[in-house]
Amino acid sequence: MAKIVTHKTASKKETILQKATELFRQRGFNATSMRHLAGAVGVEAASLYNHIESKQGLLKEICFGVAQAFTQQIEAVESGTGSQAQKVEAIIRFHISMMLHRFEETYVSNRDWKHLKEPHLTNFLQQRRDYEKHFAAIVEKGIEQNEFGKMHPHIAVLTILSAVRGIEFWQKNKRGISTNDMENDLVQILINGLAFKQPE
Amino acid sequence: MAKIVTHKTASKKETILQKATELFRQRGFNATSMRHLAGAVGVEAASLYNHIESKQGLLKEICFGVAQAFTQQIEAVESGTGSQAQKVEAIIRFHISMMLHRFEETYVSNRDWKHLKEPHLTNFLQQRRDYEKHFAAIVEKGIEQNEFGKMHPHIAVLTILSAVRGIEFWQKNKRGISTNDMENDLVQILINGLAFKQPE
Repeated sequence: MAKIVTHKTASKKETILQKATELFRQRGFNATSMRHLAGAVGVEAASLYNHIESKQGLLKEICFGVAQAFTQQIEAVESGTGSQAQKVEAIIRFHISMMLHRFEETYVSNRDWKHLKEPHLTNFLQQRRDYEKHFAAIVEKGIEQNEFGKMHPHIAVLTILSAVRGIEFWQKNKRGISTNDMENDLVQILINGLAFKQPE
Repeated sequence: MAKIVTHKTASKKETILQKATELFRQRGFNATSMRHLAGAVGVEAASLYNHIESKQGLLKEICFGVAQAFTQQIEAVESGTGSQAQKVEAIIRFHISMMLHRFEETYVSNRDWKHLKEPHLTNFLQQRRDYEKHFAAIVEKGIEQNEFGKMHPHIAVLTILSAVRGIEFWQKNKRGISTNDMENDLVQILINGLAFKQPE
């Protein structure tokens, strides 16, 4: 049942996805109706279904789009060269860039993934667990090589992922701190935080 | 219009507050009705009003109870002795202990404060801003005294507060990591992260 997707259909779908991302971010997935979405796109609610399958389908695209971006980046980092600290730094900077440049979809994915239906929910959680496992393996290697101090790699990963999500609060109140300074301070705190420290 | 509060009334109120905290945590403030609360307490919905004013009043007690605990602790730390690093460590450990031992109210306060009505909303946000200002002042002093590296104190505070909130995820999946290890690793990462580092 292949559909012929014309250019016009494809770009309309893009618009709908973008508006849906904005609305989900502002109102939450549950509180966003097809009627809200139609209003934002500027069409009748019924005609949305010419372009998309369902609200659930939109959420799926958002969540898996974000998950895929993170998975691709960590795979590139793993197969690249550099110390484990450099690899962790590249991962942190990628998380920051997602929070800065793909904020709405990253935010929706972080918060609304729980509304995914099966089998997508299980699939999404599996991707997230895999990601964390790969991330923890890089930290673990850094500990073994004495680049990082002795710690549970999963606590390091948790600390980094949580700290990066806090950028959301900086975005609401920047206090005159530039994007560049925010990014560098955050990287400094987290990378120094992991570093092996000579006993005094 | 002073009310005579008997011992029985006071303890019933405690029970209601506790059940409300559990329900708000599980369902969210908006999705919790007085009927749910009555069911959890084991009374008729109408009779709840003999003990409490409103759902809003319960949220107010939860949020301001948590805010007060943090404010009292930071004031005690400020007026105490010790290096700035020791002070920051004491603050981090207090946040962790709130996440461990007063988890439900801390969680509700973190997420549902936005449902507070005026003037409580403004008051709560003011308390939170004051808290962050006091916290940032301790970090700033540590930077001036070369205990900590050069950074924006507010980014340090944001990183710490976000990292500590991540304990919620450890609580969902501990991966065999003990409370003690989690706490010590988190403190190590954050305190080392702030530390002044001799240029290499």
